[in-house]
Formats: sequence, structure tokens, C-alpha cells
Amino acid sequence: MASITFTKGQGTGNDFVLYADPAGELDLSPDQVAAVCDRHFGVGADGLLRAVRSSAIEAGAAALAEHPGAEWFMDYRNGDGSTAEMCGNGVRVFARFLTETGLLDLPEGAQAAIGTRAGVKLVERSGDGFRVDMGPWRLDGNDALVRAKELDVPRPGLGVDVGNPHVVVALPSEDDLERADLAYAPVLEPVQPAGANVEFVVPRDPMVIDGVGYVRMRVHERGSGETLSCGTGAVATALAVRHWAGAGAPDDWRVAVPGGVVGVRMFPGPDGEHTSLEGPAELVFTGTLEV
Amino acid sequence: MASITFTKGQGTGNDFVLYADPAGELDLSPDQVAAVCDRHFGVGADGLLRAVRSSAIEAGAAALAEHPGAEWFMDYRNGDGSTAEMCGNGVRVFARFLTETGLLDLPEGAQAAIGTRAGVKLVERSGDGFRVDMGPWRLDGNDALVRAKELDVPRPGLGVDVGNPHVVVALPSEDDLERADLAYAPVLEPVQPAGANVEFVVPRDPMVIDGVGYVRMRVHERGSGETLSCGTGAVATALAVRHWAGAGAPDDWRVAVPGGVVGVRMFPGPDGEHTSLEGPAELVFTGTLEV
Repeated sequence: MASITFTKGQGTGNDFVLYADPAGELDLSPDQVAAVCDRHFGVGADGLLRAVRSSAIEAGAAALAEHPGAEWFMDYRNGDGSTAEMCGNGVRVFARFLTETGLLDLPEGAQAAIGTRAGVKLVERSGDGFRVDMGPWRLDGNDALVRAKELDVPRPGLGVDVGNPHVVVALPSEDDLERADLAYAPVLEPVQPAGANVEFVVPRDPMVIDGVGYVRMRVHERGSGETLSCGTGAVATALAVRHWAGAGAPDDWRVAVPGGVVGVRMFPGPDGEHTSLEGPAELVFTGTLEV
Repeated sequence: MASITFTKGQGTGNDFVLYADPAGELDLSPDQVAAVCDRHFGVGADGLLRAVRSSAIEAGAAALAEHPGAEWFMDYRNGDGSTAEMCGNGVRVFARFLTETGLLDLPEGAQAAIGTRAGVKLVERSGDGFRVDMGPWRLDGNDALVRAKELDVPRPGLGVDVGNPHVVVALPSEDDLERADLAYAPVLEPVQPAGANVEFVVPRDPMVIDGVGYVRMRVHERGSGETLSCGTGAVATALAVRHWAGAGAPDDWRVAVPGGVVGVRMFPGPDGEHTSLEGPAELVFTGTLEV
């Protein structure tokens, strides 16, 4: 048994158990992670974020090779205990945790390099929250017809890869968005063997005000079901709606998810266009747990 | 803003935020309770249990009049912030909290009187957990035909009042029990205007071994949906199955709920037959929260 002092944090309702393990001495087994993340028998969270010095663990070597300033590595685990590459809401909450606990100094306007299994991510402060560079994206050609429970007809979805696969479906009305029953996984045709996150979206009317685009989204995450927020899903949503809108559509978007609002921007990167995700990242409480 | 030091606890997956407020100085508003119990933005729990000295609050006067030993009052709030009378799993977790934190001395074999809005409840240790006298019960005549999603035909349910209203439905097989989709509220005919908790139950085969009856149950709680456990539901289940089994059926039952196993016993009380509920009650972690 070990005692872990942890912090619970959330960004637009996507919630995490965080703890500092600078020397990489307190790695949890998949069963332990699942027990911690259990919402009735444990602390309860969508995932677990362990803050380890990149120099202290094997996965950190690649991060340091990519960016020598990547002092901290985000060891992200899904709620079921499996490892995951990245999480757009998670990395913002991770930045909040590092800065609030004094592990990282991040002045306004500066960028911090955070090691993740999907490479180094650059994070900066943005208003009351944080913004993270989500890297390049592409239309992956995995378009599909999407059937969802309580929606009358199958609807075409656009395949977007933002590091993980998404299919974005435009619905004709807010009523349809409300009615879709995402307790059931949407059915894709053709089937995508590795699965995909599916976003149902409705642009606001008018969609663009003062050069900013507005859209509402609900998401079904593969393996998790409907969630209050999905950072990569919000990015895929903004990209798809801009794609459909055609020339002249903005590069600055606000995506309303069930758990709040996040911002998505498109900007030129070193390896093609990048996106950024910004939004709230809050620490909720601190606790102590025996594992 | 006030800082609350709290403990998270659970009994068969029915989970609670508990805190000690001996002098009754830290009552939370319904909005605050709902925020604390929110599973993504707060601590997350089915309900909140405040430990107040009965002498310190108005509701405690009735408890002390009923039993002068009822030093502690369980101020129970539902996850949505509303007040509730009683909770069979909650009072066991409450007893664990009082004894572990040194607020109550409860030797093996002794009974503690706990004040609740449903009167004083007597609690004692039982194995690794606690047992609570749930008081008298009755068949309330509110029998109903019950329809549940994914079950082919409506099935007859027995109305049982154990302080709150239940309708207990026997299913023919474990397959039926698995298949019932309790994400949707079962439909009762005739409609019960105040609603009822609905239990779907399958006795084990053989049902009785060594004088103990065994039954599996899933429950849809009015206002909460399907839950991992419901103490009064387990009691109603044991009473209904004993009723159906007729003369010679045992007074000692094990009810398997999705979150574990609880024990139910029937025994003579001062005002007719009483039941008791026993089972695990665990403290999971401690934390500090600003409210």
C-alpha cells in the first residue's frame, strides 16, 4: 500500500485525477488506475495524469530528444487503465496542475513544452485557461454514412484525423442534436475497424459573427460513450464545419460542448496547418488515497 | 468560501461525501450540494451526509425526544441537493465514518442510535460492515403491470412499502435480468403519481441453501435511474420473494445487487415485523474542498 496525495481537475467536464511523481517511483498498474477512476468505488475520473520528470522515465527520453525543455512528461491513462497518447483537455488541466503546485513556471505569453506519448506539446496561458498546440491535421478520407439511435435517416460524415480518427456529422437542427441517443454507439458504413469518435454538430445561426465561427457539438467517444467534452472532437468539428463552409470561413471557432465552451484556431505550422485548443482548466479538490 | 475536509465513502457502490459539522455551522445550500455531488465538476457522489450533533439543529430535537442516545444526526441530501429522509446504505457508511473518525464509540454487539429525518435508526457492527434496523414494512397494495425497455411483455409487480414505495417484478431468467434496459424508466400501469422504485429480481436456483435465501436484483430508482445498489430496494426484494415463496420461506436473505451483496433479515419488532439491512461500508479517501 502506498499513499497518494492527488488533485482532481477538469476542463469542460472532462475530468482527471492528477498526482506528482517527479522521480517516477509510483507507477500504477492498469487495475489500480481503473480502481482510482471508478466513479463509485474510487475517486472517479475520465482518466489519470501522472506528472513525471521526462528524465526519470523511458518514454521521456524521446520527449527530451524532441525538445530539451520538455521537463515534465504527462503519463496519461484512460479510466480503464490503458495508456493513451494524448488528450487535449487533459494537457490543459495538466498545465494548470503543474503551475498551481509550483512544479512549472509559466509566465503569460511564454510556452511550456510538455512531453506526451504523442510527442511534445506546446502549452501557454490563454485568458483564464490554457491553450495547447494540437499539431497538424488532415482529411483522412474515412467518410461514412452514420446512423444514430433516434435519428430518422443515416447522414453523411466527414473523416478527419487530428492525431486520432473522427467522423463529423452535420445535423439540420438543434432538435435533432438533442434527440440523438448517444447512449448507443453510432453505426458507421463502411465499418471502421479501429473505430472512430463521432461528432454530431449544428452550426449556430448566424454561424459567423465578427470573424468567429460558432458551432454546437455532441460526441460519442469510442470506448467511452457520450462524454461532456472531447478536445480532439472539438478540433475535428471546427475543421469539418470550416471545410463545409468553403472559402472565406474563419480560422477562429468556439465549439459548445455539453460541458462548456472551447476555442479552436487554425494557424500555419512548421509541418502544414496546425490547430490549437483553448479553454478552461480547473482544479477541484485535493485528496489522499491508499492504493 | 469555506474549506470543507471531507471523506468519500461507499456501500455496495452507493457512494457519499461525508463531513463532520458537530456544531451545525456548515449547512450547504441545494446548489452547493449539487455542485459537490456532480461527478465531473465536483467530488461526485449519489448523496451527501453531514454529521451534526442532534442538539445543534432543529431536526435533531425530534430525534433526541425519540431516543436520548441519538447524539448524531445524519443530515442526508440527495445528489441534486434535495433533502431525503433515509438511505439504508447511507446510514451504514455514516456509521463507518463516525466510528473511524472517533466521533462515535460503537463496540461489537452494541447499538448506536442515529437521528434521521425518518426517525431514529439503530445501527450495529456486523462482520466487516454494519447492520441497520430498517423498521416496519407493509404490502401497500400498489401492485402494477410493469413495462421495461427490451423486455417483451409487461410483468406483474408487487407493491411494497418499506418507508418508501417499491414495485418488485420477478423475471423468468438471468438473461431477462441482463437484457432489461434500465436507462429508461419502467412504465407502471396504473401510473403511480408519486413514482416508485422498481426492482427486477431473479431468485437463484436453488433459492434456499441452509436456511438462507438468495436473489439477484437490478433497480431503477425514481429520480436517479439505475443505480449500483439501493438498500430499501434490497429489503423490498427480499420481502417480495419471501411473500411469493409462501410458508416456510426463510427470514434471512442475501441480495446480489450490481455493486455487491447485502443481507436482509426479517425479525419481530415492537410495532410489527421489522427488517434489517447489512453489508459493507467503506471509506475510500479524504479530501479538502472549497465551497
